[in-house]
Amino acid sequence: MLSLKFEGGIQVETRKIPEATITRLSQYSKYLERLDYNGIDIVSSSELAEGVGVNSAQVRKDLSYFGEFGTRGIGYNVKDLLNYTLKILGLNRKWPLVLVGAGNVGQALCSFKGFNERGFSIVGVFDNDLTKIGKRIGKLEVFPMEKLPEVIKLHEIKIGIIAVPVRAAQEVADLMIKSGLQAILNFARVTLNIPENIKVKNVDLSVKLEILTFDLVT
Amino acid sequence: MLSLKFEGGIQVETRKIPEATITRLSQYSKYLERLDYNGIDIVSSSELAEGVGVNSAQVRKDLSYFGEFGTRGIGYNVKDLLNYTLKILGLNRKWPLVLVGAGNVGQALCSFKGFNERGFSIVGVFDNDLTKIGKRIGKLEVFPMEKLPEVIKLHEIKIGIIAVPVRAAQEVADLMIKSGLQAILNFARVTLNIPENIKVKNVDLSVKLEILTFDLVT
Repeated sequence: MLSLKFEGGIQVETRKIPEATITRLSQYSKYLERLDYNGIDIVSSSELAEGVGVNSAQVRKDLSYFGEFGTRGIGYNVKDLLNYTLKILGLNRKWPLVLVGAGNVGQALCSFKGFNERGFSIVGVFDNDLTKIGKRIGKLEVFPMEKLPEVIKLHEIKIGIIAVPVRAAQEVADLMIKSGLQAILNFARVTLNIPENIKVKNVDLSVKLEILTFDLVT
Repeated sequence: MLSLKFEGGIQVETRKIPEATITRLSQYSKYLERLDYNGIDIVSSSELAEGVGVNSAQVRKDLSYFGEFGTRGIGYNVKDLLNYTLKILGLNRKWPLVLVGAGNVGQALCSFKGFNERGFSIVGVFDNDLTKIGKRIGKLEVFPMEKLPEVIKLHEIKIGIIAVPVRAAQEVADLMIKSGLQAILNFARVTLNIPENIKVKNVDLSVKLEILTFDLVT
Protein backbone atom coordinates (compact mmCIF):
# COMPACT_ATOMS: atom_id res chain seq x y z
CA MET A 1 0.00 0.00 0.00
CA LEU A 2 1.24 3.45 -0.88
CA SER A 3 0.22 6.81 0.44
CA LEU A 4 -0.47 9.52 -2.13
CA LYS A 5 0.33 13.11 -1.27
CA PHE A 6 0.10 14.60 -4.71
CA GLU A 7 1.11 18.25 -4.69
CA GLY A 8 0.81 20.85 -7.42
CA GLY A 9 -1.80 18.78 -9.23
CA ILE A 10 -5.55 18.90 -9.44
CA GLN A 11 -5.98 17.61 -5.94
CA VAL A 12 -4.30 16.18 -2.89
CA GLU A 13 -5.20 12.68 -1.70
CA THR A 14 -4.15 10.91 1.44
CA ARG A 15 -6.01 7.61 1.00
CA LYS A 16 -3.86 4.50 0.68
CA ILE A 17 -3.38 3.47 -2.93
CA PRO A 18 -2.96 -0.29 -3.50
CA GLU A 19 0.11 -1.20 -5.53
CA ALA A 20 -2.15 -3.15 -7.90
CA THR A 21 -3.87 0.15 -8.73
CA ILE A 22 -0.53 1.77 -9.60
CA THR A 23 0.32 -1.25 -11.77
CA ARG A 24 -2.96 -0.88 -13.66
CA LEU A 25 -2.48 2.89 -13.89
CA SER A 26 0.76 2.14 -15.75
CA GLN A 27 -1.19 -0.17 -18.08
CA TYR A 28 -3.96 2.40 -18.68
CA SER A 29 -1.34 5.01 -19.37
CA LYS A 30 0.40 2.83 -21.99
CA TYR A 31 -2.90 2.00 -23.66
CA LEU A 32 -3.82 5.71 -23.74
CA GLU A 33 -0.45 6.40 -25.40
CA ARG A 34 -1.37 3.96 -28.17
CA LEU A 35 -4.81 5.53 -28.61
CA ASP A 36 -3.31 9.03 -28.70
CA TYR A 37 -0.67 7.90 -31.22
CA ASN A 38 -3.50 6.56 -33.40
CA GLY A 39 -5.32 9.91 -33.28
CA ILE A 40 -8.17 8.79 -31.02
CA ASP A 41 -9.59 11.63 -28.86
CA ILE A 42 -12.18 9.95 -26.62
CA VAL A 43 -12.26 6.55 -24.92
CA SER A 44 -15.00 4.95 -22.78
CA SER A 45 -14.16 3.17 -19.53
CA SER A 46 -15.28 -0.12 -21.11
CA GLU A 47 -12.92 0.36 -24.09
CA LEU A 48 -10.08 1.28 -21.74
CA ALA A 49 -10.92 -1.75 -19.58
CA GLU A 50 -10.94 -4.11 -22.54
CA GLY A 51 -7.67 -2.65 -23.80
CA VAL A 52 -5.85 -3.73 -20.65
CA GLY A 53 -7.89 -6.82 -19.79
CA VAL A 54 -9.88 -5.69 -16.73
CA ASN A 55 -13.54 -4.70 -16.29
CA SER A 56 -14.84 -1.14 -16.49
CA ALA A 57 -15.82 -0.99 -12.80
CA GLN A 58 -12.15 -1.61 -12.01
CA VAL A 59 -11.07 1.25 -14.29
CA ARG A 60 -13.49 3.66 -12.61
CA LYS A 61 -12.46 2.51 -9.13
CA ASP A 62 -8.73 2.85 -9.91
CA LEU A 63 -9.15 6.34 -11.37
CA SER A 64 -11.39 7.44 -8.48
CA TYR A 65 -8.34 7.43 -6.18
CA PHE A 66 -6.99 10.37 -8.13
CA GLY A 67 -10.06 12.52 -8.79
CA GLU A 68 -13.01 12.72 -11.12
CA PHE A 69 -12.39 12.06 -14.77
CA GLY A 70 -14.51 11.72 -17.86
CA THR A 71 -18.05 12.70 -18.78
CA ARG A 72 -20.90 10.27 -18.14
CA GLY A 73 -22.15 8.79 -21.41
CA ILE A 74 -19.22 10.21 -23.38
CA GLY A 75 -15.98 8.95 -21.90
CA TYR A 76 -12.51 10.23 -21.18
CA ASN A 77 -10.48 12.74 -23.16
CA VAL A 78 -7.52 10.56 -24.21
CA LYS A 79 -4.85 13.28 -24.15
CA ASP A 80 -5.96 14.74 -20.81
CA LEU A 81 -6.18 11.37 -19.07
CA LEU A 82 -2.85 10.29 -20.57
CA ASN A 83 -1.11 13.41 -19.29
CA TYR A 84 -2.69 13.03 -15.89
CA THR A 85 -1.69 9.36 -15.53
CA LEU A 86 1.87 10.24 -16.58
CA LYS A 87 1.96 13.00 -13.98
CA ILE A 88 0.65 10.72 -11.21
CA LEU A 89 3.28 8.11 -12.08
CA GLY A 90 6.01 10.74 -12.05
CA LEU A 91 6.61 10.26 -15.78
CA ASN A 92 6.19 13.90 -16.83
CA ARG A 93 9.99 14.11 -16.64
CA LYS A 94 13.05 12.06 -17.66
CA TRP A 95 14.61 9.54 -15.25
CA PRO A 96 18.29 8.72 -15.84
CA LEU A 97 19.24 5.31 -14.41
CA VAL A 98 22.41 3.46 -13.51
CA LEU A 99 22.66 -0.27 -14.13
CA VAL A 100 25.08 -2.55 -12.27
CA GLY A 101 25.73 -5.89 -13.97
CA ALA A 102 26.68 -6.22 -17.63
CA GLY A 103 25.69 -9.88 -17.99
CA ASN A 104 22.82 -11.29 -20.03
CA VAL A 105 20.05 -9.61 -18.04
CA GLY A 106 21.91 -6.29 -17.99
CA GLN A 107 22.47 -6.42 -21.75
CA ALA A 108 18.80 -7.20 -22.39
CA LEU A 109 17.78 -4.26 -20.19
CA CYS A 110 20.12 -1.91 -22.09
CA SER A 111 18.40 -2.76 -25.35
CA PHE A 112 14.86 -2.73 -23.92
CA LYS A 113 12.91 -0.07 -25.81
CA GLY A 114 10.10 0.00 -23.25
CA PHE A 115 12.26 1.99 -20.83
CA ASN A 116 12.96 4.84 -23.25
CA GLU A 117 9.30 5.08 -24.23
CA ARG A 118 8.44 5.87 -20.62
CA GLY A 119 11.21 8.39 -20.03
CA PHE A 120 13.78 6.05 -18.47
CA SER A 121 17.29 5.96 -19.84
CA ILE A 122 20.25 3.96 -18.63
CA VAL A 123 23.14 6.45 -18.61
CA GLY A 124 25.77 4.26 -16.99
CA VAL A 125 26.54 0.51 -16.90
CA PHE A 126 28.93 -0.87 -14.29
CA ASP A 127 30.58 -4.19 -13.56
CA ASN A 128 33.56 -5.46 -11.58
CA ASP A 129 34.39 -8.14 -14.15
CA LEU A 130 37.63 -7.15 -15.88
CA THR A 131 36.58 -9.01 -19.05
CA LYS A 132 33.48 -6.76 -19.30
CA ILE A 133 34.88 -3.36 -18.27
CA GLY A 134 35.62 -1.18 -21.29
CA LYS A 135 33.37 -3.17 -23.64
CA ARG A 136 30.39 -1.46 -25.25
CA ILE A 137 26.71 -2.34 -24.83
CA GLY A 138 24.94 -0.31 -27.49
CA LYS A 139 26.12 3.27 -26.96
CA LEU A 140 27.37 2.71 -23.43
CA GLU A 141 30.82 1.68 -22.25
CA VAL A 142 30.92 -0.66 -19.25
CA PHE A 143 32.60 1.22 -16.38
CA PRO A 144 34.33 -0.22 -13.31
CA MET A 145 32.30 -0.14 -10.07
CA GLU A 146 34.54 2.60 -8.62
CA LYS A 147 32.99 5.09 -11.07
CA LEU A 148 29.43 4.48 -9.82
CA PRO A 149 29.32 7.24 -7.14
CA GLU A 150 30.71 9.82 -9.59
CA VAL A 151 28.14 9.06 -12.32
CA ILE A 152 25.26 9.05 -9.80
CA LYS A 153 26.29 12.51 -8.59
CA LEU A 154 27.01 13.90 -12.04
CA HIS A 155 23.58 13.02 -13.46
CA GLU A 156 21.70 13.45 -10.14
CA ILE A 157 20.43 9.90 -10.48
CA LYS A 158 17.75 8.64 -8.10
CA ILE A 159 17.17 5.07 -9.35
CA GLY A 160 19.55 2.15 -9.86
CA ILE A 161 19.06 -1.30 -11.35
CA ILE A 162 20.82 -4.35 -9.88
CA ALA A 163 21.42 -7.19 -12.36
CA VAL A 164 24.31 -9.01 -10.68
CA PRO A 165 24.58 -12.53 -9.20
CA VAL A 166 22.98 -13.11 -5.77
CA ARG A 167 26.33 -13.12 -3.95
CA ALA A 168 27.18 -9.58 -5.12
CA ALA A 169 23.77 -7.93 -4.81
CA GLN A 170 23.89 -6.67 -1.21
CA GLU A 171 27.30 -5.06 -1.69
CA VAL A 172 26.08 -3.30 -4.83
CA ALA A 173 22.94 -2.11 -3.03
CA ASP A 174 25.05 -0.74 -0.14
CA LEU A 175 27.28 1.21 -2.55
CA MET A 176 24.23 2.55 -4.43
CA ILE A 177 22.65 3.83 -1.22
CA LYS A 178 25.94 5.29 0.04
CA SER A 179 26.19 7.13 -3.31
CA GLY A 180 22.78 8.72 -2.84
CA LEU A 181 20.33 6.56 -4.79
CA GLN A 182 16.77 6.61 -3.42
CA ALA A 183 15.24 3.65 -5.25
CA ILE A 184 16.44 0.26 -6.49
CA LEU A 185 15.03 -2.18 -9.03
CA ASN A 186 16.53 -5.53 -8.06
CA PHE A 187 16.81 -8.43 -10.53
CA ALA A 188 18.98 -10.55 -8.18
CA ARG A 189 16.98 -13.33 -6.55
CA VAL A 190 17.68 -12.25 -2.99
CA THR A 191 15.89 -10.07 -0.44
CA LEU A 192 18.13 -7.04 0.13
CA ASN A 193 18.68 -5.41 3.53
CA ILE A 194 17.77 -1.81 2.83
CA PRO A 195 17.04 1.21 5.07
CA GLU A 196 13.34 2.09 5.32
CA ASN A 197 13.71 5.39 3.46
CA ILE A 198 15.00 3.62 0.32
CA LYS A 199 12.41 2.14 -2.08
CA VAL A 200 13.07 -1.31 -3.50
CA LYS A 201 11.17 -3.42 -6.02
CA ASN A 202 12.25 -6.96 -6.80
CA VAL A 203 11.77 -8.45 -10.25
CA ASP A 204 11.50 -12.24 -10.20
CA LEU A 205 11.09 -13.54 -13.73
CA SER A 206 9.88 -16.97 -12.61
CA VAL A 207 6.94 -15.74 -10.47
CA LYS A 208 4.57 -15.23 -13.39
CA LEU A 209 5.42 -18.68 -14.75
CA GLU A 210 4.50 -20.07 -11.33
CA ILE A 211 1.15 -18.28 -11.41
CA LEU A 212 0.57 -20.02 -14.76
CA THR A 213 1.53 -23.46 -13.44
CA PHE A 214 -0.65 -22.93 -10.35
CA ASP A 215 -3.49 -22.17 -12.71
CA LEU A 216 -2.74 -25.17 -14.93
CA VAL A 217 -2.75 -27.70 -12.07
CA THR A 218 -5.78 -26.39 -10.15
CA MET B 1 -8.64 -14.08 -8.61
CA LEU B 2 -8.04 -17.77 -9.04
CA SER B 3 -10.15 -20.70 -7.99
CA LEU B 4 -8.37 -23.55 -6.29
CA LYS B 5 -9.64 -27.07 -6.82
CA PHE B 6 -6.68 -28.92 -5.46
CA GLU B 7 -7.10 -32.67 -6.01
CA GLY B 8 -5.03 -35.53 -4.66
CA GLY B 9 -3.59 -33.34 -1.94
CA ILE B 10 -4.33 -32.87 1.72
CA GLN B 11 -7.56 -31.05 1.02
CA VAL B 12 -9.77 -29.51 -1.59
CA GLU B 13 -10.52 -25.79 -1.51
CA THR B 14 -12.93 -23.78 -3.59
CA ARG B 15 -12.36 -20.30 -2.13
CA LYS B 16 -11.00 -17.68 -4.48
CA ILE B 17 -7.26 -17.23 -4.08
CA PRO B 18 -5.93 -13.72 -4.83
CA GLU B 19 -3.08 -13.64 -7.33
CA ALA B 20 -1.04 -11.66 -4.78
CA THR B 21 -1.27 -14.69 -2.48
CA ILE B 22 0.10 -16.96 -5.22
CA THR B 23 2.90 -14.48 -5.84
CA ARG B 24 3.83 -14.52 -2.15
CA LEU B 25 3.50 -18.32 -2.04
CA SER B 26 6.20 -18.40 -4.72
CA GLN B 27 8.36 -16.12 -2.53
CA TYR B 28 7.79 -18.22 0.62
CA SER B 29 8.64 -21.32 -1.35
CA LYS B 30 11.94 -19.85 -2.59
CA TYR B 31 12.86 -18.70 0.89
CA LEU B 32 12.06 -22.17 2.28
CA GLU B 33 14.35 -23.66 -0.38
CA ARG B 34 17.19 -21.49 0.92
CA LEU B 35 16.49 -22.49 4.54
CA ASP B 36 16.33 -26.17 3.58
CA TYR B 37 19.57 -25.85 1.60
CA ASN B 38 21.19 -24.36 4.70
CA GLY B 39 20.03 -27.29 6.84
CA ILE B 40 17.38 -25.39 8.82
CA ASP B 41 14.49 -27.62 9.96
CA ILE B 42 12.00 -25.25 11.61
CA VAL B 43 10.97 -21.68 10.77
CA SER B 44 8.54 -19.35 12.57
CA SER B 45 5.96 -17.32 10.65
CA SER B 46 7.76 -14.14 11.72
CA GLU B 47 11.10 -15.41 10.34
CA LEU B 48 9.41 -16.49 7.12
CA ALA B 49 7.69 -13.10 6.94
CA GLU B 50 10.91 -11.18 7.46
CA GLY B 51 12.66 -13.33 4.85
CA VAL B 52 10.31 -12.17 2.12
CA GLY B 53 9.52 -8.68 3.43
CA VAL B 54 5.91 -9.03 4.65
CA ASN B 55 4.42 -9.31 8.16
CA SER B 56 3.67 -12.59 9.92
CA ALA B 57 -0.12 -12.07 9.87
CA GLN B 58 0.15 -11.98 6.07
CA VAL B 59 2.07 -15.27 6.04
CA ARG B 60 -0.55 -16.97 8.21
CA LYS B 61 -3.41 -15.56 6.13
CA ASP B 62 -1.82 -16.64 2.84
CA LEU B 63 -1.16 -20.17 4.09
CA SER B 64 -4.65 -20.47 5.58
CA TYR B 65 -6.09 -20.66 2.05
CA PHE B 66 -4.43 -24.04 1.69
CA GLY B 67 -4.94 -25.68 5.05
CA GLU B 68 -3.47 -25.69 8.55
CA PHE B 69 0.27 -25.66 8.84
CA GLY B 70 2.78 -25.39 11.65
CA THR B 71 2.60 -25.83 15.40
CA ARG B 72 1.72 -22.88 17.64
CA GLY B 73 4.78 -21.69 19.53
CA ILE B 74 7.13 -23.84 17.47
CA GLY B 75 6.74 -22.97 13.82
CA TYR B 76 6.68 -24.72 10.48
CA ASN B 77 8.64 -27.78 9.42
CA VAL B 78 10.74 -26.33 6.58
CA LYS B 79 10.87 -29.42 4.38
CA ASP B 80 7.15 -30.20 4.72
CA LEU B 81 6.03 -26.64 4.03
CA LEU B 82 8.47 -26.37 1.12
CA ASN B 83 7.13 -29.54 -0.48
CA TYR B 84 3.58 -28.44 0.07
CA THR B 85 4.12 -24.99 -1.48
CA LEU B 86 5.84 -26.60 -4.47
CA LYS B 87 2.88 -28.96 -4.90
CA ILE B 88 0.32 -26.14 -4.70
CA LEU B 89 2.27 -24.17 -7.31
CA GLY B 90 2.45 -27.22 -9.59
CA LEU B 91 6.23 -27.35 -9.21
CA ASN B 92 6.49 -30.97 -8.02
CA ARG B 93 7.21 -31.82 -11.68
CA LYS B 94 9.30 -30.50 -14.60
CA TRP B 95 7.85 -27.98 -17.08
CA PRO B 96 9.46 -27.90 -20.52
CA LEU B 97 8.94 -24.55 -22.27
CA VAL B 98 9.20 -23.18 -25.79
CA LEU B 99 10.50 -19.67 -26.37
CA VAL B 100 9.72 -17.64 -29.48
CA GLY B 101 12.08 -14.72 -30.10
CA ALA B 102 15.88 -15.07 -30.06
CA GLY B 103 16.62 -11.36 -29.54
CA ASN B 104 18.12 -9.76 -26.43
CA VAL B 105 15.25 -10.64 -24.10
CA GLY B 106 15.07 -14.21 -25.44
CA GLN B 107 18.81 -14.68 -24.97
CA ALA B 108 18.66 -13.35 -21.41
CA LEU B 109 15.78 -15.74 -20.62
CA CYS B 110 17.75 -18.70 -22.01
CA SER B 111 20.59 -18.01 -19.60
CA PHE B 112 18.35 -17.23 -16.62
CA LYS B 113 19.19 -19.75 -13.88
CA GLY B 114 16.06 -18.98 -11.89
CA PHE B 115 13.92 -20.97 -14.34
CA ASN B 116 15.89 -24.20 -13.96
CA GLU B 117 15.89 -23.92 -10.18
CA ARG B 118 12.09 -24.05 -10.22
CA GLY B 119 11.76 -26.92 -12.70
CA PHE B 120 11.32 -24.87 -15.87
CA SER B 121 13.53 -25.59 -18.86
CA ILE B 122 13.45 -23.99 -22.27
CA VAL B 123 13.69 -26.92 -24.70
CA GLY B 124 13.18 -25.03 -27.96
CA VAL B 125 13.96 -21.50 -29.22
CA PHE B 126 12.30 -20.22 -32.39
CA ASP B 127 12.59 -17.17 -34.61
CA ASN B 128 11.65 -16.21 -38.16
CA ASP B 129 14.79 -14.08 -38.62
CA LEU B 130 17.06 -15.87 -41.11
CA THR B 131 20.13 -14.30 -39.50
CA LYS B 132 19.22 -15.97 -36.18
CA ILE B 133 18.00 -19.38 -37.32
CA GLY B 134 20.68 -22.06 -36.92
CA LYS B 135 22.71 -20.04 -34.41
CA ARG B 136 23.19 -21.39 -30.90
CA ILE B 137 22.06 -19.84 -27.63
CA GLY B 138 23.80 -21.87 -24.95
CA LYS B 139 22.96 -25.50 -25.73
CA LEU B 140 20.00 -24.69 -27.96
CA GLU B 141 19.90 -24.13 -31.71
CA VAL B 142 17.47 -21.46 -32.92
CA PHE B 143 14.82 -23.19 -35.04
CA PRO B 144 12.57 -21.68 -37.71
CA MET B 145 8.96 -20.95 -36.63
CA GLU B 146 7.66 -23.83 -38.78
CA LYS B 147 9.16 -26.30 -36.32
CA LEU B 148 7.20 -24.91 -33.36
CA PRO B 149 4.13 -27.22 -33.60
CA GLU B 150 6.35 -30.32 -33.92
CA VAL B 151 8.46 -29.49 -30.84
CA ILE B 152 5.36 -28.64 -28.77
CA LYS B 153 3.83 -32.02 -29.60
CA LEU B 154 7.06 -33.99 -29.18
CA HIS B 155 7.72 -32.70 -25.64
CA GLU B 156 4.02 -32.35 -24.70
CA ILE B 157 4.67 -28.71 -23.86
CA LYS B 158 1.96 -26.67 -22.11
CA ILE B 159 3.65 -23.27 -21.70
CA GLY B 160 5.23 -20.92 -24.22
CA ILE B 161 7.14 -17.66 -23.84
CA ILE B 162 6.72 -14.81 -26.32
CA ALA B 163 9.74 -12.47 -26.61
CA VAL B 164 9.17 -10.99 -30.08
CA PRO B 165 8.45 -7.40 -31.21
CA VAL B 166 4.90 -6.10 -30.68
CA ARG B 167 3.96 -6.42 -34.38
CA ALA B 168 4.67 -10.19 -34.39
CA ALA B 169 3.26 -11.14 -30.98
CA GLN B 170 -0.37 -11.91 -31.90
CA GLU B 171 0.63 -14.14 -34.82
CA VAL B 172 3.01 -16.07 -32.55
CA ALA B 173 0.31 -16.45 -29.89
CA ASP B 174 -2.16 -17.76 -32.49
CA LEU B 175 0.34 -20.37 -33.70
CA MET B 176 1.14 -21.40 -30.12
CA ILE B 177 -2.54 -21.93 -29.30
CA LYS B 178 -3.18 -23.78 -32.57
CA SER B 179 -0.27 -26.05 -31.67
CA GLY B 180 -1.84 -26.94 -28.33
CA LEU B 181 -0.20 -24.66 -25.75
CA GLN B 182 -2.37 -23.91 -22.73
CA ALA B 183 -0.49 -21.00 -21.18
CA ILE B 184 1.59 -18.07 -22.43
CA LEU B 185 4.09 -15.79 -20.72
CA ASN B 186 4.16 -12.65 -22.87
CA PHE B 187 7.07 -10.20 -22.87
CA ALA B 188 5.76 -8.21 -25.87
CA ARG B 189 4.22 -4.92 -24.79
CA VAL B 190 0.78 -5.60 -26.28
CA THR B 191 -2.47 -7.09 -24.97
CA LEU B 192 -3.00 -10.36 -26.84
CA ASN B 193 -6.40 -11.59 -28.05
CA ILE B 194 -6.59 -15.03 -26.50
CA PRO B 195 -9.46 -17.54 -26.02
CA GLU B 196 -10.76 -17.70 -22.43
CA ASN B 197 -9.47 -21.24 -21.84
CA ILE B 198 -5.85 -20.17 -22.45
CA LYS B 199 -3.94 -18.60 -19.54
CA VAL B 200 -1.81 -15.53 -20.24
CA LYS B 201 0.50 -13.49 -18.05
CA ASN B 202 2.15 -10.34 -19.33
CA VAL B 203 5.58 -9.25 -18.15
CA ASP B 204 6.18 -5.53 -18.44
CA LEU B 205 9.67 -4.67 -17.27
CA SER B 206 8.92 -0.95 -16.89
CA VAL B 207 5.95 -1.35 -14.50
CA LYS B 208 8.06 -1.81 -11.39
CA LEU B 209 10.17 1.22 -12.31
CA GLU B 210 6.93 3.20 -12.55
CA ILE B 211 5.86 2.03 -9.08
CA LEU B 212 9.22 3.37 -7.87
CA THR B 213 8.81 6.74 -9.61
CA PHE B 214 5.22 7.01 -8.30
CA ASP B 215 6.64 6.45 -4.84
CA LEU B 216 9.48 8.97 -5.36
CA VAL B 217 7.18 11.80 -6.47
CA THR B 218 4.36 11.30 -3.94
